[in-house]
Amino acid sequence: MSNIYDIALEKHGNWKGKLSVEVKVPMETREDLSIAYTPGVAEPCRKIHQNKEDVYKYTWKGNSVAVVTDGTAVLGLGDIGPEAALPVMEGKAILFKQFAGIDSVPICLNTKDPKEIIAICKAIAPGFGGINLEDISAPRCVEIERALKKELNIPVFHDDQHGTAIVVTAGLINALKVVGKKKEDVTVVVSGAGAAGSSIIKMLLDFGVKEVYGFNINGIISMENYDSYDFLTKELAEITNKANKQITMAEALKEADVFIGVSAPRILTKEMVQAMKKDPIVFAMANPEPEITYEDAKAAGAKVVGTGRSDFPNQVNNVLAFPGLFKGALMSRAEQITEEMKLAAAVGIASIISDEEVNEDYVIPSAFNEKVAEIVAKEVARVAEEQRQ
Amino acid sequence: MSNIYDIALEKHGNWKGKLSVEVKVPMETREDLSIAYTPGVAEPCRKIHQNKEDVYKYTWKGNSVAVVTDGTAVLGLGDIGPEAALPVMEGKAILFKQFAGIDSVPICLNTKDPKEIIAICKAIAPGFGGINLEDISAPRCVEIERALKKELNIPVFHDDQHGTAIVVTAGLINALKVVGKKKEDVTVVVSGAGAAGSSIIKMLLDFGVKEVYGFNINGIISMENYDSYDFLTKELAEITNKANKQITMAEALKEADVFIGVSAPRILTKEMVQAMKKDPIVFAMANPEPEITYEDAKAAGAKVVGTGRSDFPNQVNNVLAFPGLFKGALMSRAEQITEEMKLAAAVGIASIISDEEVNEDYVIPSAFNEKVAEIVAKEVARVAEEQRQ
Repeated sequence: MSNIYDIALEKHGNWKGKLSVEVKVPMETREDLSIAYTPGVAEPCRKIHQNKEDVYKYTWKGNSVAVVTDGTAVLGLGDIGPEAALPVMEGKAILFKQFAGIDSVPICLNTKDPKEIIAICKAIAPGFGGINLEDISAPRCVEIERALKKELNIPVFHDDQHGTAIVVTAGLINALKVVGKKKEDVTVVVSGAGAAGSSIIKMLLDFGVKEVYGFNINGIISMENYDSYDFLTKELAEITNKANKQITMAEALKEADVFIGVSAPRILTKEMVQAMKKDPIVFAMANPEPEITYEDAKAAGAKVVGTGRSDFPNQVNNVLAFPGLFKGALMSRAEQITEEMKLAAAVGIASIISDEEVNEDYVIPSAFNEKVAEIVAKEVARVAEEQRQ
Repeated sequence: MSNIYDIALEKHGNWKGKLSVEVKVPMETREDLSIAYTPGVAEPCRKIHQNKEDVYKYTWKGNSVAVVTDGTAVLGLGDIGPEAALPVMEGKAILFKQFAGIDSVPICLNTKDPKEIIAICKAIAPGFGGINLEDISAPRCVEIERALKKELNIPVFHDDQHGTAIVVTAGLINALKVVGKKKEDVTVVVSGAGAAGSSIIKMLLDFGVKEVYGFNINGIISMENYDSYDFLTKELAEITNKANKQITMAEALKEADVFIGVSAPRILTKEMVQAMKKDPIVFAMANPEPEITYEDAKAAGAKVVGTGRSDFPNQVNNVLAFPGLFKGALMSRAEQITEEMKLAAAVGIASIISDEEVNEDYVIPSAFNEKVAEIVAKEVARVAEEQRQ
């Protein structure tokens, strides 16, 4: 019997592309052509030339997003190059359309130079309402996103950093209800401090958890030894591990209510979960094999368990966040996606599940819940309006 | 009553974009998602990583074109910038779809530096099957196109240069039938030696006309005074005006069978047409006002008259050329659009009108003739196959 990879390969071979560009306007007669193209098209051009903002009135800019990658960190496959990244970018583009009605275009770049990637994104920005950075390796992705946020007046978002953070935060909001704890009282261990991990750590602290211990391949992140780390880790050292402890992850977990993994398969043992505080919450999102399996985590006493996999409860799936987030930013004409908008997106996702419905196997809504993008967009747009004032 | 510009502005305001990105594949279930996106999508990624050519098997690359502009020479409006160019680029993209089924994306660049434009086109090339340069001012457009043709292995085509040349050549093929002259015997005056004019001159000489006199605002192009011109004009001086004559356009027209104008309104007088050789052929394509009106040219004795306008016979419309040209290049996986392919496209367009049908008011087929793109594509693909050997 064929597995999912064989099926996907065959289907991709039949499809030869998962998206198409379609004509939205009449094009049957000479008059149609003279309205949509020359000579009529000159008039919207003139208007936009007079007032650049009119590009939102007369073109697709207000509802379009460029999905930009350099192919350096594609899924779990690593630096496979821009051509090999294209199937993923096409996938992302159709998710934008399917879940938020956004017209989005894959842009796969044949350069790994952050300066050049920044320059290209700036150069193509006039034709798009937003830029979604995708599958760019850390810490370059952070450097690129920060530069673009500073220099562009359209929303720029690196999904690999913030998408997981938003959905995990949403899951945590509901998981805390299940276990009856308050965010101000919980300690979180985060394993993995790359693009996703560092964004998770920052968002949880913004959200208001008591303490975070971050771990990467060099052990616990602390002010003691950040010099040997990159700028991203240094930033984390400044906000986590306030007592500057030098402890192992197993030791840190004894103080922890929550484990969040964006690191490597099978690094969380049953014993570690058993040593955690009462009613442990575990989000184990290493791909395709999580830090601990759903079954093992439950057997070890974890109360709420989420993974990145669709075949277990509580799937942490970025598709819950980015379509609605961009939809909200585009519909409110926000010039940036702010920290407050991301938190609002998390709150919006969590709110899909009512207090009556929420339970240990249902802290994160389904990716196919059509309300999600709508509610996230509304929340994000609301915050955008507030922040405009 | 509203004119075409008012109508076009209102419609563009309603449309907010003339194109959309649509999902071609099933996206209803979790399984659909796991085939089109993670984890299944990893398999086509892996295959392409192993063999870059497989990007044509598993993605939209083989049927997609980037429509790239810097907004420096948009319609007759000049340097209006990348935002104001977007309505035209959207228009171009929908023509690609409507007439050739090609998925095409507007890319409006916020830079005028040819080096940067070249670098960006090279960088975005992995995700597209071809690049259509559009509305970039001369002579920069020529520099950019030549560099990209050298450095990329996908078709690159600057429509403003070659599109008009192809359609004019097609029109001339049929016009010569109407007046009963042979290409080897005719002398052509070309007014305007920018992007379009220089491409027309080169193509007509490739096609095999006897002599071409080129004129720009400095008068006749000749070896005598090319030094003061740009590189493009120097190239023209080397192939036109073999006797190195220093004559006015009125004088040159006395020797000429054909006038081709891509220059300025009303510069061709009735007297000049009357002084031309028997049965003059006039293509007057200045926009929106031609070098001479259809009526005046006819009244002065021109046998065949073509313009750029859709409200007179023999409209020279680029849409006859570029969709089929790219379709042929993409379907044959040509790495370049060669001079031979462009000539084949012209022959293909001309062939739509049979010897029985051809007459002075029907030397160029209608832009809505559905056979055009198909026949052009077939001709171009045939030449591509021949040139591969």
